[in-house]
Amino acid sequence: MKGFSLNQATTKRWPLEDLVAGCVAADVAAVGLWREDVAAYGLEKTAKLMRDAGLTVSSLCRSGFFHEAGWYDENRRAIDEAATLGTDTLVLVSGGLPGTSRDLDGARRHVGDAIGALVPDARNAGVRLAIEALHPMFCSDRCVVSTLDQALQLAAPYPVEAVGVVIDTYHLWWDDKVWQGIADAGPRIAAFQLADWITPLPEGVLLGRGLPGTGSVDMRRFHRAVADAGYDGWVEVEVFHSDVWSRPGAEVLAEAYEGYRAAVS
Amino acid sequence: MKGFSLNQATTKRWPLEDLVAGCVAADVAAVGLWREDVAAYGLEKTAKLMRDAGLTVSSLCRSGFFHEAGWYDENRRAIDEAATLGTDTLVLVSGGLPGTSRDLDGARRHVGDAIGALVPDARNAGVRLAIEALHPMFCSDRCVVSTLDQALQLAAPYPVEAVGVVIDTYHLWWDDKVWQGIADAGPRIAAFQLADWITPLPEGVLLGRGLPGTGSVDMRRFHRAVADAGYDGWVEVEVFHSDVWSRPGAEVLAEAYEGYRAAVS
Repeated sequence: MKGFSLNQATTKRWPLEDLVAGCVAADVAAVGLWREDVAAYGLEKTAKLMRDAGLTVSSLCRSGFFHEAGWYDENRRAIDEAATLGTDTLVLVSGGLPGTSRDLDGARRHVGDAIGALVPDARNAGVRLAIEALHPMFCSDRCVVSTLDQALQLAAPYPVEAVGVVIDTYHLWWDDKVWQGIADAGPRIAAFQLADWITPLPEGVLLGRGLPGTGSVDMRRFHRAVADAGYDGWVEVEVFHSDVWSRPGAEVLAEAYEGYRAAVS
Repeated sequence: MKGFSLNQATTKRWPLEDLVAGCVAADVAAVGLWREDVAAYGLEKTAKLMRDAGLTVSSLCRSGFFHEAGWYDENRRAIDEAATLGTDTLVLVSGGLPGTSRDLDGARRHVGDAIGALVPDARNAGVRLAIEALHPMFCSDRCVVSTLDQALQLAAPYPVEAVGVVIDTYHLWWDDKVWQGIADAGPRIAAFQLADWITPLPEGVLLGRGLPGTGSVDMRRFHRAVADAGYDGWVEVEVFHSDVWSRPGAEVLAEAYEGYRAAVS
């Protein structure tokens, strides 16, 4: 694999220029960026900042949310943003059930249709759509794609270079079918993200992730499985936690890097 | 199916004698009981209270927790309690990862061994062990059995009259494989419990359930699937939510019953 990448969401309050300087100082070669933070700093300006620092953008998070009005145009913009930033990986989070709907099968079918509609745009831009399954606790409100198997089924109709899947340890660790899924995924694996499972979960459950090594996930097993499947891309550490966010960026970066090293050792 | 049953956890603060009187007044024929509440009132006294009121005990919740010291004796006690209460259904929640372990496969194997050890005791007592899969968000700290498929695999080595599975809508609704699982389960279905999925989840996520009809779960589809699988037992409404618990028991009972009626209509 290519090595460690700091996903920007892990150090959410670290200003982008400080993050870039911190990564360069720590010999970190890649970062995963978030659309809202890129927009706040400026798209072209972010691209230049990364280029000037010699940093690779390992992925852009995130688009999808296919249950929202205007999803098609929004996703096309995201594809263009990824291309401008020089990353070939756009992470897609599908969105939850629309409104008060209980039609989960219908919502999942719509996700498949939406991805199909975006494939030509993504291929034209040289950007790969990376379908991310989120933990089933996000099924109603964030992502109706709940397992790696579902993500792989959604990706299956399209060429591997156009549509891949994300292996995120936080979302997938509980699934006894994930090891076979990773082996089956092979060249479909477009991104590999590390975060640990810690409890108790906070209200709203979004900001409850732990840095790698602090929780229940067997990170080394994930790394071996992804390596055995032939993945040779970046390994992002992507942790959302209010306590982590309140700490100095460089300190969190060092711990994230250490967690990565323990996982790949 | 036999009809509606009020799981005691839905009206957790309703004193047992009031709950029994409320159920009789509302023409409710069955209740699901919890071991700690039964112990607080007294086991024999609870059994007599139920008999005198003409109420059926649809299930006893819950035993399991096989990662704790003394699990075998504790589960044997639970089997005896179920027999004394006159219910043939003891719900098992497996427990999470022991200590700081990350060996999820090992924890799941241990659950299988523990169930095997209890089968003779359960058969002698005329009690059926009902394996409950809990939502994957409880995997680390409450239940390493996360899907119906896993519960069915754990049950498979034993006779259907000795080991069954619980279909709880709250825990299973997100799983695209659940419909096939219910069809496959057939006579393995030992209990059917209704609770709805609502967000945002509260801190700790345990007390975040909604009364049937208030959330994202397609209750009618679950009822049809369970009926088609041949289940003819009780339908328990089992909701944990601090707001629900703070309301008058009779009012909650009426809403739970109404949610059940909408599900089976």
